Amino acid sequence: MNPVLLCGAAVAPFGKHRDRTAADLGAQAVGALLRDTGLPPDAVEAGFVGSVYGGSLIAQRVLQRVGISGPPVFTVENACASGGSAVHLAWQAVASGTYDCVAVVGVENLSAFGGGTLPLTTADVEIDQGMVMPAAYAMRAQRYLYESGATVTDLSRVSVKNRGNGAANPRAHFRQPVTLDEVATSRPVADPLRLLHCCPNSDGAAAVLLCSAPFAAELGTPSATIRASVVRSGRFHTSHRDMTWPDITERAASAAYAMAGLGPADLDVVELHDAFAIAELLHAEALGLAARHTAHKAVTNGEFDRDGRVAVSPSGGLLSRGHPVGATGVSQLAEVYWQLTGAAGPLQVAGASVALTHTTGGGIYGVDNGACSVHILAAED
Amino acid sequence: MNPVLLCGAAVAPFGKHRDRTAADLGAQAVGALLRDTGLPPDAVEAGFVGSVYGGSLIAQRVLQRVGISGPPVFTVENACASGGSAVHLAWQAVASGTYDCVAVVGVENLSAFGGGTLPLTTADVEIDQGMVMPAAYAMRAQRYLYESGATVTDLSRVSVKNRGNGAANPRAHFRQPVTLDEVATSRPVADPLRLLHCCPNSDGAAAVLLCSAPFAAELGTPSATIRASVVRSGRFHTSHRDMTWPDITERAASAAYAMAGLGPADLDVVELHDAFAIAELLHAEALGLAARHTAHKAVTNGEFDRDGRVAVSPSGGLLSRGHPVGATGVSQLAEVYWQLTGAAGPLQVAGASVALTHTTGGGIYGVDNGACSVHILAAED
Repeated sequence: MNPVLLCGAAVAPFGKHRDRTAADLGAQAVGALLRDTGLPPDAVEAGFVGSVYGGSLIAQRVLQRVGISGPPVFTVENACASGGSAVHLAWQAVASGTYDCVAVVGVENLSAFGGGTLPLTTADVEIDQGMVMPAAYAMRAQRYLYESGATVTDLSRVSVKNRGNGAANPRAHFRQPVTLDEVATSRPVADPLRLLHCCPNSDGAAAVLLCSAPFAAELGTPSATIRASVVRSGRFHTSHRDMTWPDITERAASAAYAMAGLGPADLDVVELHDAFAIAELLHAEALGLAARHTAHKAVTNGEFDRDGRVAVSPSGGLLSRGHPVGATGVSQLAEVYWQLTGAAGPLQVAGASVALTHTTGGGIYGVDNGACSVHILAAED
Repeated sequence: MNPVLLCGAAVAPFGKHRDRTAADLGAQAVGALLRDTGLPPDAVEAGFVGSVYGGSLIAQRVLQRVGISGPPVFTVENACASGGSAVHLAWQAVASGTYDCVAVVGVENLSAFGGGTLPLTTADVEIDQGMVMPAAYAMRAQRYLYESGATVTDLSRVSVKNRGNGAANPRAHFRQPVTLDEVATSRPVADPLRLLHCCPNSDGAAAVLLCSAPFAAELGTPSATIRASVVRSGRFHTSHRDMTWPDITERAASAAYAMAGLGPADLDVVELHDAFAIAELLHAEALGLAARHTAHKAVTNGEFDRDGRVAVSPSGGLLSRGHPVGATGVSQLAEVYWQLTGAAGPLQVAGASVALTHTTGGGIYGVDNGACSVHILAAED
């Protein structure tokens, strides 16, 4: 495998863009990427676009608007891991020597679907019966509180931390910090989850540029190295009897740590899939950032703060940045790109040199239906 | 690039399957593939599933039913070239040495959407104004007749040929031959196209297995070599002033011929994108199977018959097999696999040793929005 470098990143800020199309948002992000890196559109040899609801040929619709027309382009879908999966396929294409310069875009406009909780499909009996994501994570939360002794206030601390982090992020959907009391009194969604324990449905896009080492040297932009790129499918939980252990995250992370030759203790920055406050705790444990049933204590102790042991969701995470499904995984790569190149401004984690990103999707209807992507990146020496 | 071998193929026969889900059909195809090749599910290292309308995580929904759960799997979308694009990404993953054994599935259930012409999107003003595929190909047909001197009867001859071919194909949606008179008197769709100039909306699935040479030798199934795999995006026509030249097909084919070190004269079998009778003529010319404005004469002269100069759509093509969008490109690979391994039964083209498959999609709304896949395969010596 050849080294693969992340050589640029850009986003169309997340929020509600009811008057924009998914293609508009994607073109804004990849247009900014080309402008910022000085790369001419015809230097892009292939394109991967992650999207769930963008519609047929969203890859072409996005890329041709900025003059990327002709090369192989693909729309990639893997639920909430769509963006991470698009990055993975681009990484594979560069790592294998097939291409030197590949653009990745994640894009979604959920406002086009009228808002509310959007089912991934209506083809499954579980979803027809109301088993949408907030319901699934509420059950996981109930069980986690029972097993770990954590309280609803511990869940709320995740929201307070991430909303606080996101307050300084100009790319975030929500830029207002919240208090424990505000979380506790926000309207109930699915017990024990309240509104401020849940990420918003957002619209937005993100774009990153993946290059071979020689191409990156020629381009001359700040860069970070992708040390591991892993996608896994299959079982979300160990079983329905153990719904607080996201097996798929553990499998993907183990493979990524092995590929990178690094472990959880090496990480300075983590952007993980905190679609709900409980999700940060479950996935942090499966990523090895805290012992099982202790992640809530790590949050309480400030270990996951921007200046803590490992900064978890310093961008604000999904809880603050928002969750435009297909865009989320790509935007995580963008956020850690800025961290690792010292360009994160008020979000900067001091001395950030190794970062991990994580998205996971599916896993409701049929426990084997999950998708998970994990990337590990390192700053250039 | 390492050699990549096609080591097995299976389909869920195309037709109307109103009582089945897309996942059912896909599982039937990939289940038959595993059974026929004797491959255990856990030997599959990655999966690519082409689908347009299958819904989120259709890759997981298909593959986990046959026990492929855990490895990286991806849903790939590129309109009518979705299946071919999934094959391409699988080919790239094996050619680059990333994997030794990758499963590809194409799947679609269009009946789930109520039938009729299915717009790829409703986000485009052209489609809102009625510019669906039959309308687009009708305009191309009008122009082709004007430029070439061909007649509507010449178009009908394509339907008669392909419906005749498909009559012997147990996997085809339509298995009744039609006469010139039946085509001419079938109900008008978009002048000059009549119903029997158009492929049906079908439901179905197809699966193929791509392996490295060492893995293929171990597996021991009949195999064919993938000599070229190309995907292109961008401009469908040269311009709106030249709508009878599918530029995207020519660009993809040129790259494929260069990669294979072969040319149109080397081909014994071609499965191309005859979604409408006119499409066979346009794409045959852009693939170099006939000089421009002469493909209708080649059809009239029998040059594209099963025992002609080059067998075009010996499986029956989309006109007879049907067109379950995401499944079509994969099913073409399956059909030529059987041709090149001498297993095509009544469809067999004598001495078939080199074959080309071609799908193309999009290209209505915005001339830059096309997708095209071309594969060239050769029999083992």
